Amino acid sequence: MAAMTSLDLSQDVVDLTAALVDIESVSGNEETITDAIEAALDPVPWLELWRHQDSLIARTTLGRSERVVIAGHVDTVPINANLPSRDDGKHIHGLGSCDMKGGVAVALLLAASLAEPVRDVTYVFYEAEEVEAERNGLTLISAVRPEILAADFAVLMEPSNAVVEAGCQGTMRVDVSTSGVRAHSARSWNGVNAIHGAAEVLDRLTSYEPRRPVIDGLRYHEGLNAVAISGGVAGNVIPDACTVSINYRFAPDRSEPEAEAHMHEVFEAFDVVVSDSAPGALPGLHRPAAAAFLEAVGGSANPKFGWTDVSRFSSLGIPAVNFGPGNPELAHTQAEFVPHAHLRSCLEQMTAWLF
Amino acid sequence: MAAMTSLDLSQDVVDLTAALVDIESVSGNEETITDAIEAALDPVPWLELWRHQDSLIARTTLGRSERVVIAGHVDTVPINANLPSRDDGKHIHGLGSCDMKGGVAVALLLAASLAEPVRDVTYVFYEAEEVEAERNGLTLISAVRPEILAADFAVLMEPSNAVVEAGCQGTMRVDVSTSGVRAHSARSWNGVNAIHGAAEVLDRLTSYEPRRPVIDGLRYHEGLNAVAISGGVAGNVIPDACTVSINYRFAPDRSEPEAEAHMHEVFEAFDVVVSDSAPGALPGLHRPAAAAFLEAVGGSANPKFGWTDVSRFSSLGIPAVNFGPGNPELAHTQAEFVPHAHLRSCLEQMTAWLF
Repeated sequence: MAAMTSLDLSQDVVDLTAALVDIESVSGNEETITDAIEAALDPVPWLELWRHQDSLIARTTLGRSERVVIAGHVDTVPINANLPSRDDGKHIHGLGSCDMKGGVAVALLLAASLAEPVRDVTYVFYEAEEVEAERNGLTLISAVRPEILAADFAVLMEPSNAVVEAGCQGTMRVDVSTSGVRAHSARSWNGVNAIHGAAEVLDRLTSYEPRRPVIDGLRYHEGLNAVAISGGVAGNVIPDACTVSINYRFAPDRSEPEAEAHMHEVFEAFDVVVSDSAPGALPGLHRPAAAAFLEAVGGSANPKFGWTDVSRFSSLGIPAVNFGPGNPELAHTQAEFVPHAHLRSCLEQMTAWLF
Repeated sequence: MAAMTSLDLSQDVVDLTAALVDIESVSGNEETITDAIEAALDPVPWLELWRHQDSLIARTTLGRSERVVIAGHVDTVPINANLPSRDDGKHIHGLGSCDMKGGVAVALLLAASLAEPVRDVTYVFYEAEEVEAERNGLTLISAVRPEILAADFAVLMEPSNAVVEAGCQGTMRVDVSTSGVRAHSARSWNGVNAIHGAAEVLDRLTSYEPRRPVIDGLRYHEGLNAVAISGGVAGNVIPDACTVSINYRFAPDRSEPEAEAHMHEVFEAFDVVVSDSAPGALPGLHRPAAAAFLEAVGGSANPKFGWTDVSRFSSLGIPAVNFGPGNPELAHTQAEFVPHAHLRSCLEQMTAWLF
């Protein structure tokens, strides 16, 4: 056994973020960081811990009338010559600094410092968010003990520039295929070229006008994009098949069945097969728990364009928002970083909401 | 050493074709068949033999005012559960029956029977036509002893339905690429989609009107076709590159530089890179040797759409045609066959021309 890596929860949120970054935790390798979190929270008298694989839940049980979830994933995308952390005096740089060890640091300090929050809190530190859904810690927990996630509201501390990002857009991938008839390319008139047949598919994509609906005061922005195309048999053969893989990002006022129906409408007369899909989540900012949170953290919210685990909470019937330090555009980039100012303002605002 | 496989040149052209099919000679494995051909022609007193690797040349040296080449390759595409040969009473079936052991059988019987042809003849039985140009027997011979191929006219006994196919179209492959800017597909407006950029390339292909020029009375038929397309980074990334591989088949009144210039014209504003090219060959039917041949074999000719070794002779300054038994559409198919009637009519017409 390696010596236990320990985390000092009495340190500043900036230093704690750096310490978390320095515990490498690429998806699949979360044991060390979760051990360290568990060891650090175990002595905290007002928390009840429950661990499942490399996810850890810490709950207050004060009998408050409201319960909220504060959640963050502990894994990162793969190392990209960006460890250990580096502090330039204004930002912590390094793998996972932005996505999302800064948010985990804020949640850990809330858990360790707020003995009597005005709302009961379920802190969730979970594994495997950056990989396939089947391995996701939230998926695993909700499969074995869904009631432990029950809450009136959830804050996912994903990077959102320390501003509330509400709801999320759904995402669907469809394969649009064309078929043809093979022939020798020297006598192409004997065949039907499936790649040429895909011209119309691309034309529909380029002329597509994405919706930008306003929901709960937030303007979403859909997108319809080819993400892959393939076709071809050999250099002297008219190809008989071509497939365009298309990613549709749809605003949360549209359900998955409605999104699929729309794909069949846009690509009418083509073969359309859904290969992957996840629903969006309505912002739900009018609900009391969400409205109170929004007011506590400054009153403004942006729409979330990308898909996040907010949708997973939404499907459990729990309204949820993203709110965390760091610029989401930097997530998964080699040069990701998180500003000290974001870390401090998030901690301050969350504390104000719960204190 | 295995026992020498022998060929009996006193047998009928149909039986000889079957015997040749039964000597497996997939490209790279031509030694046995070329040994058999050499052994069969060696006793013929009016022929002078020269072997280079697994290609064999047999020449008459009668001092005629004209010399012609009669050529056929001895290799085949890979075995496809189509050996040994089968004779259904009207056709010989089996690997290479059509492409082109029927033509080789005709050439062998001419070589063995015509002691005093009215034109000197250079019979060429060559290796590795079905694979890359560097291994092609004609390429190898013209590199080490080009003068041995010198002639006024050449007949390539490739399958042509026993009708003259004159000239051949050139072939060029170009990669037309588009570029873009990667972005997360949830915020696609931050990127530029290179696959969408290829819509215009496909549109130009679908609206392209191929030329059908008449040359020496033969109507050629060009073709411009995508033969492959690829693009895509990941399912959630706006792709920054897409490449369409395009095959241009051009009539022999157009040179390779002209064909390339035309590609740059058609795909103006796109990145166009030539990956492969081979020139066409003009039919040259007005030349005396060709005209005499055409008259002897029935007077009619078709244009050759595909690229053949006719172009190789053409580039050596030797007008050439395809003329041989078998339907070229059956070449490289598992079910290839050659009709008895084609074998007999080709042998008869070639004999009439040379006798």
